[in-house]
Amino acid sequence: MTIAEETPPQSALLTTLGGTYYTSEAVFADEQTRIFEQMWVCAARAAELAAPGQFRRVQVGRESVLLVRGRDGVLRAFLNVCRHRGAQLCTEEQGQVKRTLRCPYHAWTYGLDGKLVAAPNLGTLTDDAGAPIDRYRYGLVPVALTEWLGYAWVCLAEEPPPFADDVIGDVTHRLGDRRAIDRYGIAELTLGRRITYDVAANWKLIVENFMECYHCSAIHPELVEVLPEFARGMAAQSYVGRGAEFGSGIDGFTVDGSSGFATLPGLTPEQDRRYYAVTIRPTVFVNLVPDHIIFHRMYPLAADRTVVECDWLYAPEVLQAGHDISRSVELFHRVNVQDFDACERTQPAMSSKAYRQGGVLVPAEHHIAEFHHWVLARLAGPA
Amino acid sequence: MTIAEETPPQSALLTTLGGTYYTSEAVFADEQTRIFEQMWVCAARAAELAAPGQFRRVQVGRESVLLVRGRDGVLRAFLNVCRHRGAQLCTEEQGQVKRTLRCPYHAWTYGLDGKLVAAPNLGTLTDDAGAPIDRYRYGLVPVALTEWLGYAWVCLAEEPPPFADDVIGDVTHRLGDRRAIDRYGIAELTLGRRITYDVAANWKLIVENFMECYHCSAIHPELVEVLPEFARGMAAQSYVGRGAEFGSGIDGFTVDGSSGFATLPGLTPEQDRRYYAVTIRPTVFVNLVPDHIIFHRMYPLAADRTVVECDWLYAPEVLQAGHDISRSVELFHRVNVQDFDACERTQPAMSSKAYRQGGVLVPAEHHIAEFHHWVLARLAGPA
Amino acid sequence: MTIAEETPPQSALLTTLGGTYYTSEAVFADEQTRIFEQMWVCAARAAELAAPGQFRRVQVGRESVLLVRGRDGVLRAFLNVCRHRGAQLCTEEQGQVKRTLRCPYHAWTYGLDGKLVAAPNLGTLTDDAGAPIDRYRYGLVPVALTEWLGYAWVCLAEEPPPFADDVIGDVTHRLGDRRAIDRYGIAELTLGRRITYDVAANWKLIVENFMECYHCSAIHPELVEVLPEFARGMAAQSYVGRGAEFGSGIDGFTVDGSSGFATLPGLTPEQDRRYYAVTIRPTVFVNLVPDHIIFHRMYPLAADRTVVECDWLYAPEVLQAGHDISRSVELFHRVNVQDFDACERTQPAMSSKAYRQGGVLVPAEHHIAEFHHWVLARLAGPA
Repeated sequence: MTIAEETPPQSALLTTLGGTYYTSEAVFADEQTRIFEQMWVCAARAAELAAPGQFRRVQVGRESVLLVRGRDGVLRAFLNVCRHRGAQLCTEEQGQVKRTLRCPYHAWTYGLDGKLVAAPNLGTLTDDAGAPIDRYRYGLVPVALTEWLGYAWVCLAEEPPPFADDVIGDVTHRLGDRRAIDRYGIAELTLGRRITYDVAANWKLIVENFMECYHCSAIHPELVEVLPEFARGMAAQSYVGRGAEFGSGIDGFTVDGSSGFATLPGLTPEQDRRYYAVTIRPTVFVNLVPDHIIFHRMYPLAADRTVVECDWLYAPEVLQAGHDISRSVELFHRVNVQDFDACERTQPAMSSKAYRQGGVLVPAEHHIAEFHHWVLARLAGPA
Repeated sequence: MTIAEETPPQSALLTTLGGTYYTSEAVFADEQTRIFEQMWVCAARAAELAAPGQFRRVQVGRESVLLVRGRDGVLRAFLNVCRHRGAQLCTEEQGQVKRTLRCPYHAWTYGLDGKLVAAPNLGTLTDDAGAPIDRYRYGLVPVALTEWLGYAWVCLAEEPPPFADDVIGDVTHRLGDRRAIDRYGIAELTLGRRITYDVAANWKLIVENFMECYHCSAIHPELVEVLPEFARGMAAQSYVGRGAEFGSGIDGFTVDGSSGFATLPGLTPEQDRRYYAVTIRPTVFVNLVPDHIIFHRMYPLAADRTVVECDWLYAPEVLQAGHDISRSVELFHRVNVQDFDACERTQPAMSSKAYRQGGVLVPAEHHIAEFHHWVLARLAGPA
Repeated sequence: MTIAEETPPQSALLTTLGGTYYTSEAVFADEQTRIFEQMWVCAARAAELAAPGQFRRVQVGRESVLLVRGRDGVLRAFLNVCRHRGAQLCTEEQGQVKRTLRCPYHAWTYGLDGKLVAAPNLGTLTDDAGAPIDRYRYGLVPVALTEWLGYAWVCLAEEPPPFADDVIGDVTHRLGDRRAIDRYGIAELTLGRRITYDVAANWKLIVENFMECYHCSAIHPELVEVLPEFARGMAAQSYVGRGAEFGSGIDGFTVDGSSGFATLPGLTPEQDRRYYAVTIRPTVFVNLVPDHIIFHRMYPLAADRTVVECDWLYAPEVLQAGHDISRSVELFHRVNVQDFDACERTQPAMSSKAYRQGGVLVPAEHHIAEFHHWVLARLAGPA
C-alpha cells in the first residue's frame, strides 16, 4: 500500500485568490456585509473623545457611526441617523456638544446615551395603542463598543462576536502571549502624529503587503537598513513570538538609524531592539518598537479604494518634553508610501486575464494563504 | 359583536417609505418610466419662447425635449433627435431659428411643425414600396404640450392623461376652488429672478420637505417671522383652502417683513396677507403670496441628484418701474437653501440599516403618507 | 407560381442598429470579449520601438499590453502583469530598459523574450513535484504580434485568426488588389505628426461616420473643396478600387489646396491625385493620398468614450528637408474635429426612445448596413 504525498514541498509555489476578488463590487458588497459589518473594527483613539460631549463620526462598513462620550464618562456609539425622518445628526467629522445631540432638521433631541429627550410636540405623540411613545425605542440605534489599547472598537453585528476571541485572539496568536502587548502600555501613550493615506487599491492587497517581507529588499531601503534580516525576505509574522532585530549599528527605529527615545518602561529585555508587526483582522495593523507604536486602521470604501489612517504613539513625556519625533515618524511614513505605491501598481492588473486564476506565493509568503482561506470562509459565512 | 379599531389615533406615528426608495437606481429608473415619462411635467416659461423660431431644450425624464414656437404662433415640443442617424438637433440651451431646424450632421431639415422639409437627395428617397417617403412619418417625434399659468407643460406618454385631472386637479384639490389660482393671473406675470439649485438628494425628499412645516421652527427663522403660525409646525397644505396668515407687524412677504408691492389685482380679500403652498405632482411647487409668485420645477437626474429651477414672478409694472425685488427674492431663496441643505443631510442616511424600514411621520406630517401611497401606486402602475 | 420581391429598391431607407447598441455597457463588454480581445488590433508604430529594450504600454480591449524590442531585434508583446503577485511591470507609457524587465514590487525579473530570469530565492523555488520551476511557464504571458505597414498589430485571442484574412483581407476587399497598398511603402514612411482625440462617443458611431460621405457637404467644407465629388455624398468606400479625385484647381491634399510634396515613388498614375479611405475592422482607418498617409487607431474605453490616435506619415526626405507639413496636417485635423463633434452630438440621442428602433440609412449609406451585420455576427460569435 502506498500513501500519496498531498502536501506540496515547503519550497513550492502556492496560488493566490483570483483577480476578481480584488475588483468585483459584488465581492466587496459581500465583504461589507460579512466582514466589516460583522466584526470588531477599530474606529477612533479614545483620548480624542476624553471629555463628556466630545463626538466623532466614523465610517464603518457602509454605515456612518457616531461616537460620543456621555456625561457619565462612558463612550458610546450610535448609527448617525435621526429616528424621525433620517437626517444625519452629525455631518462634522468631530466636535463637542453640551448635553444632547439635536437633529438640525426637525429638532428631535437625544441624550448622550441615545434616549429621545425632546422634540416639538413630543408630549402628544403616541404609539398605535395611544400610549406615550417609548423614548428608548425611538432613541438612537446603539452600536456595540469596546475600548482596548486606547482605541474605541465598534461592531455593527446584532450579536457581536467575543472581543477576546476575535481581536485579542489575533494578537495573542501572533505574539504567543497575551501579556506581550500589555507591556507596551499602548492605552497610556499619546498621539504624536497622524497621517491619512487614500490608496487606490483593494484592502486585501494592503493586508497581504503588510503580511510579507519578500518585497522589503526591493522597495524598503530605509527599513532594511534598520532591520537587516528583512533583506532575506522572511516576514516576522510567520513565526509566533518572533520580532525582527535591529542592525548592529542601529541606535533606534528612525529613518537614519539614529537614536530614538527611552524604551517604554514595561518591556522585557527580549522586546528591546526588536520590531514586531501584528495584523488584527480585518483592518488593523500594529507595529511595536521599543520607544513607540505605529497603529494603522483601514477604511475600505470601494473594491479599488481604501483609506488608511496611521497613528504614531509615544510616551507622554516624550511629547511633553518637546522632543523631535520627525525622524521617527519619517521611517514608517516612507514605508507606508512605498507599500501603498506597490499596492496601487498591483490593483490594475487584478482585472487582467493573466491574473484570472491568481498569482503565486513563494515560501516566504505561504502564511498569506491562511489569510485567503479566512476571507473565503467569511464570504461563505453568515451575513 | 365587537368592531376592531383599525385607524391609529391622530397622535400616532406613521411609518415612511423605506430607505431604498431614495437610493436605488432601479427604483429611480422605474420612477422615470412610470412617473416622469408618463405625467405632465412643467418644462419652460412660455414667455421665453414668445417669438416664432425661439426654442429651448429641456430634460424631461431621460429625454432631451425641444420646445419651439412655430411661425403660426403655436408652441410645440419634439424629441430632440434627428430621424436620420440620431444626432441631437439642438445642443444649445436656447436660441432662435428663422424657419427651420436643420440637423448639423447631414442637413436633414425640419419645419417648425416637425415635418421633414429638406435633406440631400430627399426627392429620390423611397419607402419599401418604392413610393416617395412620408415627410411626417420621418418628421420630428412630437411630444404633447399644454400651456397653463404661463408655462409650457409637456407629457412624454403615448396617451397623455387629461391635463385638467392631473395638473389642475392637484391645484383645485389644494385650494378648494379652481378659480382661486386664476385670480393671481400668473400667465400675465413677468419673470423677475430665476435661481437654479443643484441638490444632492432624491426628488421625493424635496417633495416631502415642501409638504410639511414641522421643520419650520428649526430651520426657517425668517419665514417663521413672517408667518408666525408656521412656528406651530402645521403645514398649511394639509387643510383645503387654508393659507398661512402674515404676522401682525409684517408688511410684506420679504426677508425682513418690510412692505412688498401692490396686491395683485384679481385677489379676493381673504387671499391678501396670506401664503398658499401648492404641490403639483410630480415636480412642481407653486407659492402664492399677494404680490408675487414663487414657482419651483424639479428635474430629477439621479436617485441622489435633483436640479431645482425656481422663478420669482411679478406684475409687469413692478419690473418696468425698476422696483428693487431683492428683499422679496431673498426670503424664499433663504428658505430654499435651508430646505435643500436639510434634504442633502437626509440623503446619506437613506442607505443606513437604521432607515431600512423607514422613519416615522408625526401627526403634523401625516398627509405625507398620502404622497407615499401615491408613489407606490404609480410604481405598481403602467409604464 | 410567383416569386416575392424581397430586396427593397436601391432608393429605399434601411434601418440602423437600435440605440442600445451604442449605450449599453453590457453590449460594450461583449464587444470587448468578442471583438477587441479576439481580433488583430493595431497597437503602435514599430519605428518608435526600433532599439533593443525600447518598450511601450498600450491598452488593448481591457488589457494593458507591453510591447518591447528584444536584443535579437524581434518586437514582442506581453500582458503587462508580473506572474508572481500581479503588479504591473510598466506604468510608464514608454521608455527603454537595458536587458530585462524588473517588477518593482518583489524584483521578479524577466528577459526581453518574457522568460523569468531572476527573483529573490529563485533557485530554491520548486513546482508541486519538487522540481525547479519552469521559467517560461512563470514567464510573462505572450501576446501574438505581427508587423505590417510599419505598425505592430497584436491579438489577445488564444488562437489568433489568420492576419492575411482579417487585416490584409479588409484592405484588399476595399482596394481590389493587395499590391495597391504596398505601392505606398507605408512601412518606410516617417511619423510627421500625431494627434490624439478623446471622443465622447461609441466607437461604432466613429466607424459609421468614417464609412459614409453623405455628411461631407454639411460639415467638411475644406475637404469638399479638395475632393468636389464628395459634395454629392457618395462614399468612395462603397466602390471597390475607387478613389475620390482631386478638384481641377487643387494642387495637393492640403487645407487650402496648395501643393503638397512629391508623389510617393511606387504609385501608379491612377493612384496619383486621388484619395482612398480604407476601414480595417475593428479599429483602424487608413487614408491614402499621393504624398502622405493618415492613419487612425481607435481605443474604445467605454460605451460612450473612444480615444483616437491619428498619425500623419511622410516620406523620410520630406521631414529631413524640414518642409512645412502644417497645411497638410491641418486638412485632416479639421476633418477629424468636424467628424468627432458630429459623433459626440449623436451619442446622447442613442438613449432616446426616438432611436430605440434605430434611425435610417439613405442609399449613399447602404454599405453601413454590412458593418452592422458584421457587428451582430461577431456579438453572436465566440468569445
